[in-house]
Amino acid sequence: MTRPGGRSARVRDAVHDAVVELLAAGEIDAAIPKIAERAGVNPTSIYRRWGSRDALLIDAAVTRLRTTSPIPDTGSLRGDLLGWAEGVERAMRDRHGQILLRALVATLSPDEKPLEYLRARGDDLQAVLDKAEARGEPVPSVDEVLDFVLAPFYLRVLFRRPVEPGTAAQLVDRLLTAL
Amino acid sequence: MTRPGGRSARVRDAVHDAVVELLAAGEIDAAIPKIAERAGVNPTSIYRRWGSRDALLIDAAVTRLRTTSPIPDTGSLRGDLLGWAEGVERAMRDRHGQILLRALVATLSPDEKPLEYLRARGDDLQAVLDKAEARGEPVPSVDEVLDFVLAPFYLRVLFRRPVEPGTAAQLVDRLLTAL
Repeated sequence: MTRPGGRSARVRDAVHDAVVELLAAGEIDAAIPKIAERAGVNPTSIYRRWGSRDALLIDAAVTRLRTTSPIPDTGSLRGDLLGWAEGVERAMRDRHGQILLRALVATLSPDEKPLEYLRARGDDLQAVLDKAEARGEPVPSVDEVLDFVLAPFYLRVLFRRPVEPGTAAQLVDRLLTAL
Repeated sequence: MTRPGGRSARVRDAVHDAVVELLAAGEIDAAIPKIAERAGVNPTSIYRRWGSRDALLIDAAVTRLRTTSPIPDTGSLRGDLLGWAEGVERAMRDRHGQILLRALVATLSPDEKPLEYLRARGDDLQAVLDKAEARGEPVPSVDEVLDFVLAPFYLRVLFRRPVEPGTAAQLVDRLLTAL
């Protein structure tokens, strides 16, 4: 849908920036006209592309959280998982990252259809696990990676417990030891 | 502060019930006068006791989530943790439990002071671990119990992934194996 670097990508980035800035300023209920004004785009473009404020907020949060924790290709399962988890750790120690996670969770109303947010990350992680398996390494399931690594980070942020430096390595090693 | 069974406890229960019912009906923004009306109490009593709608909502969610997952005294660490985790599993498979967790997380604004929600549960769990240690069993830390057991449940509910029956036993055994 989006050509990287094209006008469409620039609009998306500007709109995502506006969402993050408004959230960071405490304007968690900012409606589309206000977001459009801040992004310097026409509200109609936002309605056409995202349909609703909630859909836009989820897209912005998922895109940004994903961008801040890319999965590297280091040649070992531990290296790949650690690189990713250190990105998650950075995002979860960062005020903007925390705000995005909280906004994401708060936006998901309980009766909506199951969320696809974790699917994209799950697909990224599955690719890492497939490579490790092809190298003959023992591998966990994606669900185990989410339980062991992502869930403890999110619990800390959502309940405002501190995310200590080194948490990523601790959680990844806990997972690999459990294999 | 509250004498169990006294008038104060009855008011608290009625007000908590009203909060849960309004949340379940989708009225997540219900203000104190509406909650008071539904509970059949004077709004002034609510303002005096809880101070704000958010404080009331957090108290209701914490109290109810704690009540639905009491920690038994079975004589073994696995038995105690499993009894507790099965209560969490029931609450997290229940629509009201899911709504309370979501409301709790959504109510915690990112810039408030660190939340004490997990502390009460942490104290309960510490008592279990102390008993097990006194019996000579190897014990995890409270943080490990939260990471291994609570965090995966909460991740599932907040991102609307299914909580499968048997999750409690799987997570508790994962924790005990890691010891």
